[in-house]
Amino acid sequence: MDDRELLKIVTEIVGKENTADDCAVVPCGDRLMVLTTDMLHRTTDFVEGMSDWQIGWMSAAVTLSDIAGMGAEPKYLLTAVGLDDWKSLAGVMQGAQDCCRRFGAAIIGGDIDHHGELTVVTTGIGLVDRDRIVRRTGAQPGDLVCITGIPGQAQAYLEGYRRFEKALFEPQPRVEEGMYLGKGGVSAMMDDSDGIALSLYDLVSVNDCGFSLDSAKIPRPAGIPEDTAFELALFGGGDYELIFILPPKRHPVEGVSYTIIGTTVQEKVVLIDGGPLEKRGYQHRWE
Amino acid sequence: MDDRELLKIVTEIVGKENTADDCAVVPCGDRLMVLTTDMLHRTTDFVEGMSDWQIGWMSAAVTLSDIAGMGAEPKYLLTAVGLDDWKSLAGVMQGAQDCCRRFGAAIIGGDIDHHGELTVVTTGIGLVDRDRIVRRTGAQPGDLVCITGIPGQAQAYLEGYRRFEKALFEPQPRVEEGMYLGKGGVSAMMDDSDGIALSLYDLVSVNDCGFSLDSAKIPRPAGIPEDTAFELALFGGGDYELIFILPPKRHPVEGVSYTIIGTTVQEKVVLIDGGPLEKRGYQHRWE
Repeated sequence: MDDRELLKIVTEIVGKENTADDCAVVPCGDRLMVLTTDMLHRTTDFVEGMSDWQIGWMSAAVTLSDIAGMGAEPKYLLTAVGLDDWKSLAGVMQGAQDCCRRFGAAIIGGDIDHHGELTVVTTGIGLVDRDRIVRRTGAQPGDLVCITGIPGQAQAYLEGYRRFEKALFEPQPRVEEGMYLGKGGVSAMMDDSDGIALSLYDLVSVNDCGFSLDSAKIPRPAGIPEDTAFELALFGGGDYELIFILPPKRHPVEGVSYTIIGTTVQEKVVLIDGGPLEKRGYQHRWE
Repeated sequence: MDDRELLKIVTEIVGKENTADDCAVVPCGDRLMVLTTDMLHRTTDFVEGMSDWQIGWMSAAVTLSDIAGMGAEPKYLLTAVGLDDWKSLAGVMQGAQDCCRRFGAAIIGGDIDHHGELTVVTTGIGLVDRDRIVRRTGAQPGDLVCITGIPGQAQAYLEGYRRFEKALFEPQPRVEEGMYLGKGGVSAMMDDSDGIALSLYDLVSVNDCGFSLDSAKIPRPAGIPEDTAFELALFGGGDYELIFILPPKRHPVEGVSYTIIGTTVQEKVVLIDGGPLEKRGYQHRWE
């Protein structure tokens, strides 16, 4: 039983349309509203050494990243904080507030609770014009597979490369980039928080096509042995880059730095250098 | 350090306007959107004997109740579930889904996580016309103090009166009542989840007036010794009735059963039979 199998149980109860994207989408006046919620807590998400402020920042960032993955503008955040020690509250809230301010959102509500383990649940709300929203579906054969930034850095910290601490402790959601990409006409998008490989398998599962990567083109963390860096870039978790599918005629998209790492193919497969890409990355195993 | 003192820490960081009501309020087209989030978990909220389905139902109900407290129509719910045992997931989600359906809302998204303690965070979104929203502020001297239903039943279960199990395990948010009250022109409202006494002290803190209760008029759980029943009705937690302040000319409000339990007075006090009402109820103490 893994996360994606559990999601199937939920899908049977709440309907497929409510689990298909990084965010739920509902009408709001003549625009669309996107909504997403994320639960983070000490044992799974908050790594040893993180400050309360960084815990708050990360909690906001992961939710803003889901909003960015839809091409939307983050507007509001609600924060439910379960505290094992009330002295953490001010730091956590300040970190979340600073992250929201940096990316144009505001904390408008929340809840506080006593909890055996520090737990932060952030719910984010964004707005986007109807013609600029980007979903996980929409990829077409011949499109380009692209990614922002350098994947694998957060995982690199966990593998002992301590200079990548900021990548893991203070992730920078690609909010401005997501909005530019929505405006620029990308055909499908999501964030890569479970790694490139799992993200592409998620995209394959909802599109009628597949993806073929060129290993030489995949950006990887600097100063790490080649094999390890490549492994981290493909399978590492904790990154908040955007993976997106771009019609060639829309390239280059104004205002965004990105790398073309492959193309969309007719078959529902994920290939790298012509062979199948292993389907693994960050997933919790349930016993 | 209690819950309300912790709230002050949050208020200093996110601003007073974002902690003043049961829900946050933002514009949505030409209407208003209300948003609220609640964290519940095993040790504090889910009483021994509750089924997974009831845990899901309660988690949705408390959030729908906050929306009802604004006079709004619940539309959407997001559910973040932290599971100690993945086998609970289907029951919890089905309970939340059934509660949402009963009150006209839909689950549109969520998150699943492994957690040492079963934790459910629900975020609810409602819509309301600008002229029908009800806030905690707005009470005027001479208004009536009213409450729906019979307070104290959930706490009665905890005190050993087991026939009140449903009141605690399957709370019924006053969604239809809240919407009728918004339409009916009540001046202030909130739900009484921490008990009547604390709710009225919360209302005093944001209004320029106070409240005077008549003990004879307060409804109380049936079949319980008089003193205990009265104590439960005033100070018990776990209820989801609506406490509201009503201009006399608006009485009676169509479509809602309620009891007038007192009047609004000029002084910022909470009185019962002319003397001060004790300020206590459900509050977590932090060490």
